[in-house]
Amino acid sequence: MTTMQESQPPTACILSIGDELVLGTTLDTNGRALSIALREAGIDVIEHRTVRDDRAAIVAAFRVLAGYASVVISTGGLGPTDDDLTRDALNQIIDDDAPQVEDAVARADLESWFAGRGRAMAAINLRQAMRPRSARIIRNLEGTAPGLAASIGACRVFCLPGPPREMIPMLEAEVLPAVRPVGAPMIAKRTLGSFGIGESALAEMLGARMTRGREPAVGTTASGSVVSIQVVARGADAAARADREVAECMAAVAPYGFGSVDATIASTLLDECRARGRTLAVAESCTGGLIGSMLTAISGSSDVFLGGWITYSNAMKEAQLGVDPQVIAHHGAVSREAVMAMARGACERSGASFAISVSGVAGPSGGSLDKPVGTVWIGLHDAGVGAGAGVSAGTGAGVATHARPSTHARRFEFPGARDIVRDRAAKTALQLARWLLRGEHAPILWERA
Amino acid sequence: MTTMQESQPPTACILSIGDELVLGTTLDTNGRALSIALREAGIDVIEHRTVRDDRAAIVAAFRVLAGYASVVISTGGLGPTDDDLTRDALNQIIDDDAPQVEDAVARADLESWFAGRGRAMAAINLRQAMRPRSARIIRNLEGTAPGLAASIGACRVFCLPGPPREMIPMLEAEVLPAVRPVGAPMIAKRTLGSFGIGESALAEMLGARMTRGREPAVGTTASGSVVSIQVVARGADAAARADREVAECMAAVAPYGFGSVDATIASTLLDECRARGRTLAVAESCTGGLIGSMLTAISGSSDVFLGGWITYSNAMKEAQLGVDPQVIAHHGAVSREAVMAMARGACERSGASFAISVSGVAGPSGGSLDKPVGTVWIGLHDAGVGAGAGVSAGTGAGVATHARPSTHARRFEFPGARDIVRDRAAKTALQLARWLLRGEHAPILWERA
Repeated sequence: MTTMQESQPPTACILSIGDELVLGTTLDTNGRALSIALREAGIDVIEHRTVRDDRAAIVAAFRVLAGYASVVISTGGLGPTDDDLTRDALNQIIDDDAPQVEDAVARADLESWFAGRGRAMAAINLRQAMRPRSARIIRNLEGTAPGLAASIGACRVFCLPGPPREMIPMLEAEVLPAVRPVGAPMIAKRTLGSFGIGESALAEMLGARMTRGREPAVGTTASGSVVSIQVVARGADAAARADREVAECMAAVAPYGFGSVDATIASTLLDECRARGRTLAVAESCTGGLIGSMLTAISGSSDVFLGGWITYSNAMKEAQLGVDPQVIAHHGAVSREAVMAMARGACERSGASFAISVSGVAGPSGGSLDKPVGTVWIGLHDAGVGAGAGVSAGTGAGVATHARPSTHARRFEFPGARDIVRDRAAKTALQLARWLLRGEHAPILWERA
Repeated sequence: MTTMQESQPPTACILSIGDELVLGTTLDTNGRALSIALREAGIDVIEHRTVRDDRAAIVAAFRVLAGYASVVISTGGLGPTDDDLTRDALNQIIDDDAPQVEDAVARADLESWFAGRGRAMAAINLRQAMRPRSARIIRNLEGTAPGLAASIGACRVFCLPGPPREMIPMLEAEVLPAVRPVGAPMIAKRTLGSFGIGESALAEMLGARMTRGREPAVGTTASGSVVSIQVVARGADAAARADREVAECMAAVAPYGFGSVDATIASTLLDECRARGRTLAVAESCTGGLIGSMLTAISGSSDVFLGGWITYSNAMKEAQLGVDPQVIAHHGAVSREAVMAMARGACERSGASFAISVSGVAGPSGGSLDKPVGTVWIGLHDAGVGAGAGVSAGTGAGVATHARPSTHARRFEFPGARDIVRDRAAKTALQLARWLLRGEHAPILWERA
């Protein structure tokens, strides 16, 4: 197998094959995984296509895609049953439907796969050892369906099985080394998250950086209320230029931007805590554990996250966090006073150096004229610099005079359904906690005075 | 808008538009959601295609797909920025690049959207009120990007925005009613969840029901460790026959099956609590709030879910739940004794009638020979019948003699990465809680004695 040497930058198309994908029974995640892997190997993916287990449709898709991409990777349709038609479709294109041949290596792999599991091989599985004469087998060490490698005209075609745990090792072992271009322009990609600002306002902060055709390229996408900023640099020094661009973008969108690559607001907050020797506790009402869940999703969070309370009932808020029943009676559980008392209680009782609290109306019911659905109060209590894990802020001991204990709260009205209100409330609480540590302050998109 | 009346069964293609999808930055879930919705409306989806934010590629895809499908639905590319090109591509095809017109309804919707949120509309957003002369606007009540409806030859084309929470309501309100074929066979579809058993073992419990071609059709799919059972009945009495089939499947797979339609293990557990007048609290270590988050994701959960503790640190387990430091010193925080003490403490301190607790090694680090990564102990404490909300089980008052307080714990080894271990641990805890209330008992797939 030789490595590609082309003057044009190679392009790839991904073809997913299967009724279950077209009908929506199964969510296809292979296309995304392949795109990421190919892009990192220096190959631009230009299209994904998904077709049924229909031989004519598969043949047509291979032919069209091979006509304009230098690499086509298909997934699926390599199993032993009658609706697995990828092998036959490829055979029709490259060998004009000539009889297929049994591949000795594929047959041996199949037999040892079944033998190793103490299972008898059904006769039908032998179909998986067949290949078109002009195709080469790609061995599958994780399952029974070998892949196929072939050429359609100038286009290299790789047919891989559908299950990701079989497909990915084959991709890495055989496909990527074969298609990685020699001397491909270096591509460096960076992602920066932002939260608390709308996509168009963020675009205004980024200004001319987002002009199409600029190098490095800067773009935005919104997902789960997080607006991500993508930076792609190409050519010499790509990595250094991408890093520089990210730093400049981060400055341009401060304080909304956070982290990079796969960072979440939660992981960025944990890093800030670690860098500053701070520890954190939470007191959650309407988010009901979501903030804790986001923080503990990150390995190593126990360094700085001590834990918290899910005080869903008022009795829990009072008994477990020491919220004065009068506060709830006078102001309600969704109030500035309640979240401030919750944050103070969580901080003092956990011994954390600061705490965040949330109480709101997640909906769809429970709203009122005063506090419509989506109304959420977020409280923060800072025990002050010098009060760390194990040091109760309640004593006031060790608190520097320039950083005395302080509590504040902010009110939001998050639009959307219950899950969106909760998600936005949790992420806003994390962003506010981050700003607290960094001494930053800015309006949040959904804030209501 | 007239309803489709064609002799051929209508077919649909789905076109997803966006660099982030082709490059793999974002996983496209719209294709799947559209396939399911269209299929239920009686329209077969025959292809999904995903192209870049490239006008020529979008134009080519619309033209090709409109050539062989009766309906094309696109998602994405309707935003206000320069890389949102769906509107321009459609205009090129249907109006030969003629100047677009501002739509009065779209403009009014945009203005009221921003006004309702107290936000100023950026000038760039006005682009979203533009439409090709021959296209019609589809109103978007959940966001700023209106959709477009038009025809390319005999094919009906609908362009919807990318965010699912905007796209789905527009699909349901305007697209499905317009494309649903007259006289399509009645289809009733039901889904039943199951948890704690493998897909092939479940298939054995379902037996001949799963035979291909049977009516109603019964199939299974696994996702997020939940194995779902799909029942599809067609023709006269479809709804009644589907309901009957679901009840029979539920009996066949007891006690693993739960709920139906959109029920989760959490919502089923809450229903069981409500039906029995029981209240619940949680004590979470490695799941860190995930169980609370799953429970409070459901509206109305405050009826029976009182709250809980995220005792991530050992100090929190001791101070907040009363776990004896000797227990942790002797047995470790991941032990039968620790989770039993956590569940007892959570139950007694919250006044709930029962409590569940979790402590484990979510990984990737922290494993040992004795307790490898994935080891999770789950504890349950039942205050006994008669002990309800507000009644402290600690007093023993009101506990019927035939249902005294009891505590037990089970050990699991969940395979998979950190997020999968946590997800499986949380769902297992909810399933065990459900079985406790129902007096059921069965092995769980990942149990280790």
